Amino acid sequence: MNSSAEHFVSRRSLVARRHPNEVLLFFNHAEIPRTAYGINFPFRGNSHFLYLFGHLPPGTVGLIGPEGAELFLRETSREDEVWNGVGPTAEQTKADTGVERLHPVQALASRVAELTGGHKAPGTVPSVNPVTAAFQRSVLGSTPGLVGLNRELAETLIELRLHHDAEAIRELRCATAVTVDAHKAAARMIEPGVRTWEVLAALRSEVTRAGCAEAYLPIVTPNGEVLHPSMCEEVCREGDLLLIDYGAESPGGFAGDMTRTYPVGRISTEKREAYELVLRVQREAIASVRPGVRYRDLHLQAARSFAAGFVDLGILRGDPDSLVERGAHALFFPHGLGHLLGLDVHDLREFGDLAWYAPGRERSTQFGLSFLRFDRDLEPNMTVTIEPGFYYIPRLLNDPTFAAPFEDVLCRPRLAQFADLHGIRIEDDVLVVDGGCEVLTSAMPKELDLL
Amino acid sequence: MNSSAEHFVSRRSLVARRHPNEVLLFFNHAEIPRTAYGINFPFRGNSHFLYLFGHLPPGTVGLIGPEGAELFLRETSREDEVWNGVGPTAEQTKADTGVERLHPVQALASRVAELTGGHKAPGTVPSVNPVTAAFQRSVLGSTPGLVGLNRELAETLIELRLHHDAEAIRELRCATAVTVDAHKAAARMIEPGVRTWEVLAALRSEVTRAGCAEAYLPIVTPNGEVLHPSMCEEVCREGDLLLIDYGAESPGGFAGDMTRTYPVGRISTEKREAYELVLRVQREAIASVRPGVRYRDLHLQAARSFAAGFVDLGILRGDPDSLVERGAHALFFPHGLGHLLGLDVHDLREFGDLAWYAPGRERSTQFGLSFLRFDRDLEPNMTVTIEPGFYYIPRLLNDPTFAAPFEDVLCRPRLAQFADLHGIRIEDDVLVVDGGCEVLTSAMPKELDLL
Repeated sequence: MNSSAEHFVSRRSLVARRHPNEVLLFFNHAEIPRTAYGINFPFRGNSHFLYLFGHLPPGTVGLIGPEGAELFLRETSREDEVWNGVGPTAEQTKADTGVERLHPVQALASRVAELTGGHKAPGTVPSVNPVTAAFQRSVLGSTPGLVGLNRELAETLIELRLHHDAEAIRELRCATAVTVDAHKAAARMIEPGVRTWEVLAALRSEVTRAGCAEAYLPIVTPNGEVLHPSMCEEVCREGDLLLIDYGAESPGGFAGDMTRTYPVGRISTEKREAYELVLRVQREAIASVRPGVRYRDLHLQAARSFAAGFVDLGILRGDPDSLVERGAHALFFPHGLGHLLGLDVHDLREFGDLAWYAPGRERSTQFGLSFLRFDRDLEPNMTVTIEPGFYYIPRLLNDPTFAAPFEDVLCRPRLAQFADLHGIRIEDDVLVVDGGCEVLTSAMPKELDLL
Repeated sequence: MNSSAEHFVSRRSLVARRHPNEVLLFFNHAEIPRTAYGINFPFRGNSHFLYLFGHLPPGTVGLIGPEGAELFLRETSREDEVWNGVGPTAEQTKADTGVERLHPVQALASRVAELTGGHKAPGTVPSVNPVTAAFQRSVLGSTPGLVGLNRELAETLIELRLHHDAEAIRELRCATAVTVDAHKAAARMIEPGVRTWEVLAALRSEVTRAGCAEAYLPIVTPNGEVLHPSMCEEVCREGDLLLIDYGAESPGGFAGDMTRTYPVGRISTEKREAYELVLRVQREAIASVRPGVRYRDLHLQAARSFAAGFVDLGILRGDPDSLVERGAHALFFPHGLGHLLGLDVHDLREFGDLAWYAPGRERSTQFGLSFLRFDRDLEPNMTVTIEPGFYYIPRLLNDPTFAAPFEDVLCRPRLAQFADLHGIRIEDDVLVVDGGCEVLTSAMPKELDLL
């Protein structure tokens, strides 16, 4: 066994210990055609599978059961091997994964029946990959209720993946270091006239050189008021703010996630003040990160700082606490302070608030707070993003139905001076440690005069 | 209507003319999650949809029927618009597509029932996108046999897309020009010690700067004997041959597809001779491209030239024609000479040999010829690739079962001198024109001393 397989063995044994006498199945993703069969999207493994078994070919199934871990692999023909290469040998796969028992994938159903004695359904969690989900149903569909969410298994995976082990932290350091390199390359490109495609080329080039993928779809835009826009060609003009939200994915599959908003040439006083406000709110939030702090409280603290800042800027009037209570800050800061980070950029998204909210806590229905993706008490080795933002969003501010309840606190004439703000977001990735946090993306400056 | 919508109108009217009194549906693709719901692969539209309606949001459905063309669009909420942006207005969509009738997608089933009077199933072709396929079934599944292949519609789409119109040719020129730019950037990087990730970064950077996507998964490898390997980190050493098979996709969705094989530093005499042979075979094939020529004959001509070349090099013995008849050339040139090129890199792949082989022609079962992806007579405005290759493939040559029938013509001692050849492939994209062809990728040199 390679030393690099030790963490897979250790993670699997933690799972096995919580599920004695059970048979658990983990389905790696399948390839998905992009334009035609065989012309596929780049393959990316299933995150649970990557976590427990590592990089293995599409369609592989991992099993954790009473006789230990087992793997079920697609067999390849001579023609497959001429076209796609001879994969790792069985010995190599055993060494890379620490799994000794390898089977052809056709043996999956019978092996499961053998191990369970047909008495109990194996445990699994549904796949977000539609081809894999169909395969799951074909293998296990006859077992009633099987491909629904197995809540106990989900809770085990959540518990493990919420708290990063040393190997996961090593991967997160790699992902965030490459993310910083990419942003540094992009920052050098920014000047009036630069096209967003050119900036993206610089980001993508760094990430590719490092052997990494993109952890999520890139955002590079002078129109940062759209929170998750699709990339399109835009040209940066003097006085714009260029928002770049871009992250690398480490070879082990972990995500970096960082946002910087850059001035293009000289920017207006309003934009500078808005930027300084976002930066202050972000710094305060990071300074408050430590074990025991409830993430929702960090969010509300940021909301109150924003509200006070908006009053200082003259675009809102009133008492900051009351403004936050009414949700008025969300006119300009509509999203949550951040989210979990790990193997997925919004880690454990597939489990929704079972993963993201502590037991007994429920998501608010108030616009703004309803988008808060995380509400647990922070614990050591959790990793979260801290990403406050300040946006001028015509779709909200010009919508009479939406804006009406806030007209009494909105100072429209002053607000008009921010009409070309678009959006500012500053995002770092922080690892919770005893007594505080470590900012994994700290190597990328965020003071305006250093950008 | 924008002038850029005219070609969509014209293509749709060609389809409508062949299917009077029918209701035809074209499903744009849906987003596919990469790691989690909402963290998706980059969206790429369905090729038929792109061809007939252009770039529209995921999940849009186009209809061609007795009252003309209609579109069914997903409705967006205020929250969607805050997160993902306000899409084009109805007026903009009408202008971009030349379609006047827009509906919400929920109205699809009832509108289809209204137009068909419930008497006849609408025509469609199955989607390769698994999410879209499920949507197709949910909308149309109750109509018997509906989501199977509608052969008449498939034949119409094949007929149209086989012969590129002026707009398609404009897109192919764009895709191939960007492809050439990318290869030129890569060529400048090649020297002993360069890593494949660095070369890929250069390719990807050019394609991104041009606002293009990658038409297919990149191949950059000194181990070119694997025909379609997954990218991994490899280092180029003095004397290697680096194979780069890489193509850009134009903004309209058309593919470029080009391969060059570069010497790294000084290469051996055997490698140089092998390269000169591939280049000669490729030049002869391109010189023979003209309307009326059967593509399979081009392939067999290349096979015979290779066989003669392998005899000259001393690795095969015997009469070239007999060697080709036995399939001995396929030991070193196992794949077909090329394939159709258009909106998909292996264009019209979803229809298989209904698109690729002329009526009445069947695919050979002989190893080598069995991989020939195209066997029609060439006609003006068809675009094909010409991509002979010469490989030393241990998986074939060291497989006693596979190699045994050829031992009498294999000169093993001489062949051993080619054991480190790996693979050489040279590929260009050619547009068939009256009396000959135009090489769309001609701007990229292929003589060894120019590379």
